Amino acid sequence: MIEANELPRVDSARTRLRQAAIDAFAKKGFHGTTTRDISIAAGMSPAALYVHYPTKEHLLYELSFEGHQEVLRIMREATSAQSDPVHALQQLVQSFSVHHASMRTSARIVNHELTALSPEHFIEIMALRREIEQEMRQIIDWGVETGTFHTPDAHLTSAALLSLGIDLTRWYRDGLSWSPEDVATYYAGIALRIVGVEDPA
Amino acid sequence: MIEANELPRVDSARTRLRQAAIDAFAKKGFHGTTTRDISIAAGMSPAALYVHYPTKEHLLYELSFEGHQEVLRIMREATSAQSDPVHALQQLVQSFSVHHASMRTSARIVNHELTALSPEHFIEIMALRREIEQEMRQIIDWGVETGTFHTPDAHLTSAALLSLGIDLTRWYRDGLSWSPEDVATYYAGIALRIVGVEDPA
Repeated sequence: MIEANELPRVDSARTRLRQAAIDAFAKKGFHGTTTRDISIAAGMSPAALYVHYPTKEHLLYELSFEGHQEVLRIMREATSAQSDPVHALQQLVQSFSVHHASMRTSARIVNHELTALSPEHFIEIMALRREIEQEMRQIIDWGVETGTFHTPDAHLTSAALLSLGIDLTRWYRDGLSWSPEDVATYYAGIALRIVGVEDPA
Repeated sequence: MIEANELPRVDSARTRLRQAAIDAFAKKGFHGTTTRDISIAAGMSPAALYVHYPTKEHLLYELSFEGHQEVLRIMREATSAQSDPVHALQQLVQSFSVHHASMRTSARIVNHELTALSPEHFIEIMALRREIEQEMRQIIDWGVETGTFHTPDAHLTSAALLSLGIDLTRWYRDGLSWSPEDVATYYAGIALRIVGVEDPA
């Protein structure tokens, strides 16, 4: 039987371990971080991570799985209410860019530590990445099919637009003259130029 | 006095250490790699790295310094013979993209391990990065000043074009349907669209 306050306490421990892992992986990389580093940074005993995760890799996998699910959710929310491909692409690039600029520390790990996943977890995460690519791709295809977008290679255009957003996790930082929203709005405009839409209403 | 064949042997040892370091940093990150890992992968004794570099960080710095210098050289070569901003931007984005897609393993380290540099080395490398940004920026400014390019924020446009090229180090891989040259040519076209040039001659 679960004690009344058992579950919240476990959740809180996992949350602290996850935040400590994000900070440690960001500073020293997955392979440069020990389970001891994470446990101690979370204010716990050196082996505490193993109470909640079988291995350090399982913690990375949980961060990666939830990070990719969150991106998918954001992308679907951005496009679901749009009735034309121009506004759908604007909203999609805007939301995708704001997420990657503002959540850049965790999003950098999610995008740059894929090869540290176990083969089984890597396969699962790559399936989520294909769903993310598909979300972008179907908006590009919608615009091309309706004669609104003009792009010689929808696949490469889609890759470029995702790349612009993801690479914000590398170069965006505090203290720039643009907020995440400023960059995102600019990138939404760039996206329309890339697909050959000039000065949309 | 230097022995006749001393210098080449030293060069060869350094070259082997550098290649081993690139491979190791790419797999396990700078902090996840030991000097022992690098020395042994180079086919040398466990402490051999220290004969040639004071620390692992000095080896990273050498890779970083030469990587950034090479990018600067490529950018200057791409634009030096061009007499108009359209062709200058095409050549610049083409060369920059081919370099980052084809040299992606070393270029990924050069762009993603900056925080592992010592404070002094970091300052020096950041100065080179500002020169790289300046090379892109001055072509954008040239196009804007001559009325050829139309872009609301030359700084952010320049950042986006560099970002597209650098992020190839993350996502480009063998076995795609596009060669590095194919992607680079496509990106040169995208660059012209981003700066508001339609169907250049």
